[in-house]
Amino acid sequence: MKRLEQQIRFLLEIDQLKQVMRQSLLADQSRRENDAEHSWHLAMMALVLAEYAQEPQLDLPHVIRMLLIHDLVEIYAGDTYAYDEKGYLDKAEREQNAAKRLFSLLPDDQAEAFHALWEEFERGETPEARFANVCDRLQPLLLNYQTQGAVWQKHGITSDMVMKRMQPIADNGGELWEYVRGLIQSAVDNSYLAK
Amino acid sequence: MKRLEQQIRFLLEIDQLKQVMRQSLLADQSRRENDAEHSWHLAMMALVLAEYAQEPQLDLPHVIRMLLIHDLVEIYAGDTYAYDEKGYLDKAEREQNAAKRLFSLLPDDQAEAFHALWEEFERGETPEARFANVCDRLQPLLLNYQTQGAVWQKHGITSDMVMKRMQPIADNGGELWEYVRGLIQSAVDNSYLAK
Repeated sequence: MKRLEQQIRFLLEIDQLKQVMRQSLLADQSRRENDAEHSWHLAMMALVLAEYAQEPQLDLPHVIRMLLIHDLVEIYAGDTYAYDEKGYLDKAEREQNAAKRLFSLLPDDQAEAFHALWEEFERGETPEARFANVCDRLQPLLLNYQTQGAVWQKHGITSDMVMKRMQPIADNGGELWEYVRGLIQSAVDNSYLAK
Repeated sequence: MKRLEQQIRFLLEIDQLKQVMRQSLLADQSRRENDAEHSWHLAMMALVLAEYAQEPQLDLPHVIRMLLIHDLVEIYAGDTYAYDEKGYLDKAEREQNAAKRLFSLLPDDQAEAFHALWEEFERGETPEARFANVCDRLQPLLLNYQTQGAVWQKHGITSDMVMKRMQPIADNGGELWEYVRGLIQSAVDNSYLAK
């Protein structure tokens, strides 16, 4: 197959990300969020909040590339809810297989580059991967707070569980962590979130 | 209001982009596409197809930033269908007002930067804006072809109208334009699109 045809086929295949549903509700509670719009929202978040990253010399375009592709594997592997302990048991294996299958639609050079980007995000070791993770934790927190904890209550989530989930933001520190700590406290005070 | 609070408020306001519906159907025809997932898809398209841009020294991160924000004004101004001549009469004014209202939620420096990005996209004069436009024209074409022209037929669109709409890709030229020309011909041959 010609290179361009491979690329177009990949771009049509990833249209399916628009149908991978997450647990989070939209801010107005009208419906659940899908992975494609979530990925867009994270990229916007990185663009707007980059100044709060712990590492001042952050390669922001690299963060954005990572956020755009970080959930693609869920087209085949499905979304695993952040607090689903059973789902997490085989998450890594399911997603590795999905990554191989999906990225191999692309020409070899791009398949390798995308796979490397995705693995960098998953490992969370570089400053860019760490800030991408900060965005990926902050966005559902904002939506959960905005929707008065509807999803937290549905799944019996407590503030300890949320605090643990926000560890990448605690590690980032600074004003963003102060804000998040305050938001969780306020969620408990307003009974959006169980203590 | 504190800077961070302004930024968070903006990030929650733009959640509404997930509810601005476009005419395009998803590739599997199950429903219409929204602006947020469309913006994500365009950013992915820029990432995958950058090598076909007319200008080899393209600033790709700049293209991606433009694509992420290019439809935000539609939160207040609504989506105007590409072939809606009446809607286009006051589109510029509606969108200018929307841009002022939306971006002013941000701190001044970011409001200015986002407004400038959006205007650059709209003017379509820089190599980055031109390639962003190429992506914005190509994506619905791919979805229309994939869905056997369902939306074209609904609105009585002809191949002349589509060819005119694809002018930014014709101007870009090269392999991408060859591909698009072939796709339109094939759409006519398959009766997805009226001659």
